[in-house]
Amino acid sequence: MLDTAPAGVETELTQFFAAARLRASDYGEHYVALWDSLEQASRGGKRVRPALVLAAYAGFGGRDQALVAPVAVSFELLHTAFLIHDDVIDRDLARRGVANIAGQFNDRALAHGAAADQAGVWAAAAAILAGDLALSEAHRALAKLPVDVRTRLRLLDLLDRAVFVSAAGELADVTNSSARHPLTMAEVITTLENKTAVYSFEAPLQAGAVLAGATAEAIRLLGRYGRLVGVAFQLTDDLLGVFGDPLKTGKSVTADLREGKQTALIAHAGGTESWSLIAPYLGKIDLSDEEAERAREHLRACGAKAAAEGLAYDHSRWAIEALEPALIPADLRASLTELANAAVNRSR
Amino acid sequence: MLDTAPAGVETELTQFFAAARLRASDYGEHYVALWDSLEQASRGGKRVRPALVLAAYAGFGGRDQALVAPVAVSFELLHTAFLIHDDVIDRDLARRGVANIAGQFNDRALAHGAAADQAGVWAAAAAILAGDLALSEAHRALAKLPVDVRTRLRLLDLLDRAVFVSAAGELADVTNSSARHPLTMAEVITTLENKTAVYSFEAPLQAGAVLAGATAEAIRLLGRYGRLVGVAFQLTDDLLGVFGDPLKTGKSVTADLREGKQTALIAHAGGTESWSLIAPYLGKIDLSDEEAERAREHLRACGAKAAAEGLAYDHSRWAIEALEPALIPADLRASLTELANAAVNRSR
Repeated sequence: MLDTAPAGVETELTQFFAAARLRASDYGEHYVALWDSLEQASRGGKRVRPALVLAAYAGFGGRDQALVAPVAVSFELLHTAFLIHDDVIDRDLARRGVANIAGQFNDRALAHGAAADQAGVWAAAAAILAGDLALSEAHRALAKLPVDVRTRLRLLDLLDRAVFVSAAGELADVTNSSARHPLTMAEVITTLENKTAVYSFEAPLQAGAVLAGATAEAIRLLGRYGRLVGVAFQLTDDLLGVFGDPLKTGKSVTADLREGKQTALIAHAGGTESWSLIAPYLGKIDLSDEEAERAREHLRACGAKAAAEGLAYDHSRWAIEALEPALIPADLRASLTELANAAVNRSR
Repeated sequence: MLDTAPAGVETELTQFFAAARLRASDYGEHYVALWDSLEQASRGGKRVRPALVLAAYAGFGGRDQALVAPVAVSFELLHTAFLIHDDVIDRDLARRGVANIAGQFNDRALAHGAAADQAGVWAAAAAILAGDLALSEAHRALAKLPVDVRTRLRLLDLLDRAVFVSAAGELADVTNSSARHPLTMAEVITTLENKTAVYSFEAPLQAGAVLAGATAEAIRLLGRYGRLVGVAFQLTDDLLGVFGDPLKTGKSVTADLREGKQTALIAHAGGTESWSLIAPYLGKIDLSDEEAERAREHLRACGAKAAAEGLAYDHSRWAIEALEPALIPADLRASLTELANAAVNRSR
């Protein structure tokens, strides 16, 4: 399995936030609080993207931990920025049950005597600005890197593609959710790939490999692996969001149904005769546990569960097949193979 | 006066958007529309920031127009990003009477059959993502610059400071507007400086000078000039927002009063015995033209208009005084002096 991101990345992030907080203290308590909230937001994750950057870098012989750490930090802060702005778009005031930046500044405004609608403006301002600050540092960490011009331009292009494609995926996710009919399976997969797989898997792996001086062909294969494994992870997430064990995953198994989320399950069901039985449950705000269970039975019976599981396994397998032994070093291949297997074998 | 930004900057921007639109076409019509909206948003302005970059660069002997153009583009796109995200924070669907990105995507969602609340999500998503894309390109334009390491790091630091300080100013602007009492004059000036003067005047001038190889002392003076002239401009804007001629400025003279905007006028009035006469008009959503005229009379009578005008002139004069003849080349000094005079001599 991948190593967790080592201490160097945490140190780099801690130093960045300590310096920012010190600078922010010249601009008042609210701005210091904004940086505290941003640091907290960046602490929530599993550091998947840094781990991928470091694995690819080490896998292709990279040894300079001080050089690779800012690249890992760049992709982690890009992720932080996207999550924060995603929450603004979805109007969420909490993430994983804890007040997010908007939620914290909504409370802060009320504590400072602001009216409710004004508190909403504080919340939006804080979250939008925090995302902008994280996004800016993601760019800056790469731009400052002491590497040759060619390497820098290639890293900048990877980051550029990550931002460009993720924005397309995020926009598609929003416009898709207004669709009155189920999406096609191809539309679902493309959105998963664009919104998350490119910036979370493809780009971090390729950045680590570029920095280590891997060949163009190896970098291409890592990109292919990253897109496929990213889709496998998300297909599995969506399965766990309906059929998982909340005690093990920490994820509700009714929220996606209530929201009418357009997943691979729904895309499959939409093409079967069971659709008219399933559709009434989707997007039903007050869906009961019994109704959710009935929706699950229909999704099983029409083959949607099996189809989504099959697709997740296919993507995991295709990802592993992309790791050509002649081009991807054995140690890296072993850990990426393990990661691809783990993507689809999670507790449910 | 400053030259308007020459064709090189427009060409650079046009090429950037043409390339982005072509790339976006792989991701569906909504994403192409997003890039169209972003380009349109970037077309609205007067290109003040590019003009300042180019003036400082040429003033210190810079001659490579292909080198300076991306720096000018960087600060223009930074401005575009801030305006777009500012509109999201203020929940505005229009800018200067024309539908902004959020307004355009709200309409687009409704045309595609989305419900009203869902249209609001399209609007927020489009505007937040468009701002992120503009901000990313602002960073990328500098990061790609073919200059020596030291120059690149100095330019990146200027951009970093611009983002950091503007975010502080924007947040302060929002939190200040919840204050139940008038701000102090110092608070008003600091917010104008942080929110706008640093990124719009200080940083573009310093970036042009850094790129041309100006001395540290000259760069410091340009920064001082930029902050002061930026404040002079905004103090005058706020005067025109209450006492201007809408036919000449295109600006409402009741909107700021209705909104209860915390300007230098209000800060001065807050410290006088007329405050209790003025306060009831501020933030009154349905303020009539007659009431606005009465508020103006009180603001004149208590000396607020004269005080704000005096402060604007002081900042303009201090800005000019910062341009030490021994350090700032004569041609640049002449055009910056003219700019500082124009800042406070605008039609009202």
